[in-house]
Amino acid sequence: MTETDSTKAPHNTGDGTASSGPKGSEHLTPPVFDQSFQQQFIDLLLWRRDVRRFRTDPIPATDIDGLIAEACLAPSVGNCQPWRFVKVNAPERRRAIRDSFERANQQALDDYEGERARLYASLKLQGMDQAPVQLAVFADEETEAGMGLGRKTMPEMLDYSAVAAVQLLWLAARVKGIGVGWVSIIEPNVVQQALDVPEHWRLIAYLCIGYPEEDHVVPELVRHGWQDRIDPRDVTLDR
Amino acid sequence: MTETDSTKAPHNTGDGTASSGPKGSEHLTPPVFDQSFQQQFIDLLLWRRDVRRFRTDPIPATDIDGLIAEACLAPSVGNCQPWRFVKVNAPERRRAIRDSFERANQQALDDYEGERARLYASLKLQGMDQAPVQLAVFADEETEAGMGLGRKTMPEMLDYSAVAAVQLLWLAARVKGIGVGWVSIIEPNVVQQALDVPEHWRLIAYLCIGYPEEDHVVPELVRHGWQDRIDPRDVTLDR
Repeated sequence: MTETDSTKAPHNTGDGTASSGPKGSEHLTPPVFDQSFQQQFIDLLLWRRDVRRFRTDPIPATDIDGLIAEACLAPSVGNCQPWRFVKVNAPERRRAIRDSFERANQQALDDYEGERARLYASLKLQGMDQAPVQLAVFADEETEAGMGLGRKTMPEMLDYSAVAAVQLLWLAARVKGIGVGWVSIIEPNVVQQALDVPEHWRLIAYLCIGYPEEDHVVPELVRHGWQDRIDPRDVTLDR
Repeated sequence: MTETDSTKAPHNTGDGTASSGPKGSEHLTPPVFDQSFQQQFIDLLLWRRDVRRFRTDPIPATDIDGLIAEACLAPSVGNCQPWRFVKVNAPERRRAIRDSFERANQQALDDYEGERARLYASLKLQGMDQAPVQLAVFADEETEAGMGLGRKTMPEMLDYSAVAAVQLLWLAARVKGIGVGWVSIIEPNVVQQALDVPEHWRLIAYLCIGYPEEDHVVPELVRHGWQDRIDPRDVTLDR
C-alpha cells in the first residue's frame, strides 16, 4: 500500500489536502498488525527511554523533518493541530536556555534535604551539552483551526493535543534508534523569550534529540533508586 | 528475548519491582526495528483514529488490562506515574456521564451559528451508547511518587504524563484492532462525582473503547469538512 512507501513523507498521505489525493486513499485496505508486529510494538514501549546521555554525531535533517511529520499525525481536539515546532540552532539561544536549566535545577536541589539532595545532585537530568538537535514544542493557544470544537468544558485539551504529538515523535524516534529527552526543569517564559515566538504560544516541551550513548530497558530513575515502577493493578479501579 | 513473549504482561518487565528480575534484564540486547517495522509503524499512526462508531461486541477483559499495562510504560515526570484508570461499569454512572455529554454538547452547539451550527449538529462526537468499554483516566495531583522531580517550574508535567499514558493506550489498542474515542465534551466535575474518586484526581480523559464499525485513514473531521490537516512545514520554525 502506498502509505507504507518509505520514500513518501507521512504528511503526503491521509490528510485531505495533499496532492496525492488522500480522499481517494479511503479505498485502501486497513492494515492488520500481526503477532510479530504486536510483540515488537511492546518492545518499542519497553525500550523507549527519556535519554540524557547522547552521542554528538549529527542526525540527518530529513530524519528530524520526518519525525515532525509523524508527530503531526497525532490526535488533536477538533483536529485543531495546535503543535508548533521550533528547531533551536543559534548558540546564543541554546545558551540562554541552558542557563535557565541551571537556575531551575539549583532551585530544585535546594528543595531537597539530606540523602535525597545527595541523590538528586548525582542525577543527570538533561543532555543539552551533547544532543545535536534541540526542539521546542509549543501549543498555539489562539489557533482558529478546529473552531473550538471539543474544548469548551476542557480547554486544556489544546495543550494535551501538543503533548500527544510529542509522544508520537518520541516513539517514532526510538523506532529509528534516535533518543529523545524531555527537559522540564526549565523556565517556560525564558524559553519563549529566547526563541522569539508569539506570546500566545505556550511551551509544552523542550526536547533534546540525538543518538543515545546506551540503550536501557529500565528507566534511569529506577536504576538510580529515585522511583520504582508502580504495578498497573495498583492504579486501576472498577466503578 | 523474553520481553517480547506475548504471554507475559508488560508490567512484569523492566520495572525494577517485578519478580522476574528486571535489573537482570539490562543485559538484554536492545531491539533494532527494521524497515518493515518502520513502515508498519507509520501505518499505525496513519490509521489510528478517534473512533465514535463502535460495534457492541465485548472486548476481552484481559485485553483491556493489557492495554492499561502498556499505557503504564509511558514516560512520566520524575517517574511519578500519576495515571489512574477507572473502568466505568455501573449503568447509573454511565448514565450520569452520558447526561453530562448531552448538556455540554448542547451548550457547545449554541456557540455556533448558521452553516457551522448545522455542520456541528451533524457530527457524531461520541460513541457512549455503543462502546462496550468506558475508561476514565485521571492524574493524581497529590502523588508522592517521583518526589516532585521535574515539575517545579512546569507543574503541568504531571497532567502531561497522564496524557502520555493515554496516547500509548490508544496506539496499543489500534495495534490490536481496537478503537478508542476520547470524549472531551463533558463536565469534568460531574465525571469525578459520578465515579466517586478522590477530589485530588483530575480528569484527563474519558475514553470509549470497542471494535470500530469501520477503519479510516482520513480523520472524521476532515471527511466531514470541519477541519483539514495542516502541512507540518507550516508549523515548523528555525531559530
